[in-house]
Amino acid sequence: MIKMRAKSISILWWTDEKALISILGHRNAAQRKLIRLAYEETYQEDLLKRLESELSGDFERAVYHWTLDPPDRDAVLLNVALRKAIHDYRVVLEIACVHSPDELLAVKRAYQFRYKHSLEEVVTAHTSGDIRNLLVALVSTYRYNGDEINARVAHLEADILHNAIQEKAFNHEEVIRVLSTRSKAQIIATLNCYKDDHGTSITKILLGNPSDEFLAALRTAIQCINNPLKYFEKVLRNVIDKVGTDEDALSRVIVTRAEKDLEEIKELYKKRNNASLEHAVPKDTSGDYKDFLLTLLGSKAF
Amino acid sequence: MIKMRAKSISILWWTDEKALISILGHRNAAQRKLIRLAYEETYQEDLLKRLESELSGDFERAVYHWTLDPPDRDAVLLNVALRKAIHDYRVVLEIACVHSPDELLAVKRAYQFRYKHSLEEVVTAHTSGDIRNLLVALVSTYRYNGDEINARVAHLEADILHNAIQEKAFNHEEVIRVLSTRSKAQIIATLNCYKDDHGTSITKILLGNPSDEFLAALRTAIQCINNPLKYFEKVLRNVIDKVGTDEDALSRVIVTRAEKDLEEIKELYKKRNNASLEHAVPKDTSGDYKDFLLTLLGSKAF
Repeated sequence: MIKMRAKSISILWWTDEKALISILGHRNAAQRKLIRLAYEETYQEDLLKRLESELSGDFERAVYHWTLDPPDRDAVLLNVALRKAIHDYRVVLEIACVHSPDELLAVKRAYQFRYKHSLEEVVTAHTSGDIRNLLVALVSTYRYNGDEINARVAHLEADILHNAIQEKAFNHEEVIRVLSTRSKAQIIATLNCYKDDHGTSITKILLGNPSDEFLAALRTAIQCINNPLKYFEKVLRNVIDKVGTDEDALSRVIVTRAEKDLEEIKELYKKRNNASLEHAVPKDTSGDYKDFLLTLLGSKAF
Repeated sequence: MIKMRAKSISILWWTDEKALISILGHRNAAQRKLIRLAYEETYQEDLLKRLESELSGDFERAVYHWTLDPPDRDAVLLNVALRKAIHDYRVVLEIACVHSPDELLAVKRAYQFRYKHSLEEVVTAHTSGDIRNLLVALVSTYRYNGDEINARVAHLEADILHNAIQEKAFNHEEVIRVLSTRSKAQIIATLNCYKDDHGTSITKILLGNPSDEFLAALRTAIQCINNPLKYFEKVLRNVIDKVGTDEDALSRVIVTRAEKDLEEIKELYKKRNNASLEHAVPKDTSGDYKDFLLTLLGSKAF
């Protein structure tokens, strides 16, 4: 069956991107891996290399990323994001703060295997100052993943965050320590304490100066830990509402979340925007790229 | 066979510590684990709990640590070291800097399983200032473990270390960055460049003020990365030469290295001190404790 899929892909080159979309777009990570293996065995050629040479533009990038193993895909996304002239720290923050500790570890292993460096090294090399301290701490840590929370610590650290904000010392090492070493359950408890004690969420307070790169990164980290669904819905909303489309962000959210929580992100999007993502995405995209994203948005195969 | 061993241990309580030493002291980690399992199955009792209640003092601690799974043993050693009134950062530094990245990860997992916190959290909670920045960075990182080195980076970073030392800015974040994010092979290349370019090793330069806790930790970290054998030989030499014995350090080195590089540490010790460890250790120890350490020193079973 898988061999047949691999064969179908091969005879489709130059002829039928629609069938390619239909085959790959409806397969989960394990099935895509088998298709890659079968393709390589049958044609002595890496399917990914073939995709790179046959396809182009946003469509090629989206299909390529989709076909990679998820941790390897994240490693590639990180490498591209960190080497951009204008940094996009969202990719680093999403991977460091949305992933479970073991998922982050898998990405770090894939990164080392592919690039012969640690992720810590490359983040350090492409950043500086406060933002470096924040990002390196977030990608390095191996958090505790348990659900237990300590209410006393939550209150204490809500106060630490509040004091740092009062003093406008957002880059204070205590802020970075809380966000990078505590378990997610504990950080969420702390953020809830903050809201209860001070009547507003910490992310609202941090809205202050939108051009401040560090503040923006801090907000993104907190959003990714506290409520990834809300965060990803907002990324998609911003992409779709904006004049011109940030295809990298659009593809990234759809490709990386398709096998995780895309259904929930779609529901949230619909609730907040009175329109479905399946309705909104075609307005900003076209051709095979549009069809591929719609396939991932509509697939129930994962 | 293993069941017989478990049975032998049980009937020996109160009677024959020598046989207990002979059984456990000649078994490797996998065999000790099987003995624990067989003991639990046969007597519905945890062998470790029994060891705790039947034995005492340095002998009990050494046998207890020896019987634990190595990553779990390290988690226990870390927890004890970090909660001491007078901190002993050597344990943290040995585990963070001598272990391979995956061994360190196994300790971090064992720590979380046992204490329901991350190692990062507990190191942060029991330290402050510069030493906290150094230790948290060293325990957090997941280094690249490859052998490739970049000679250009080695020269560049030898200069960075040299400049930090010239400015007496040992706590400079660049020093911590180099030591915590680079692979060990790369750090060793950098230390060699330093020696070649400046005619002396960095650890000699850092000898400056022995009462400076941060400088001492920095030296230990560098020694543990650069030459663990030399480092452990020196720990043993200091224990043995000193009036009074630091049994915790003596047991720790012998118990934790017995299945790794104790043979090489013994050779180095003999070369440097014109006496064997088997000859030196009995002068500072006695009774069952002495016999147990000598069993580990003499065992070829690992």
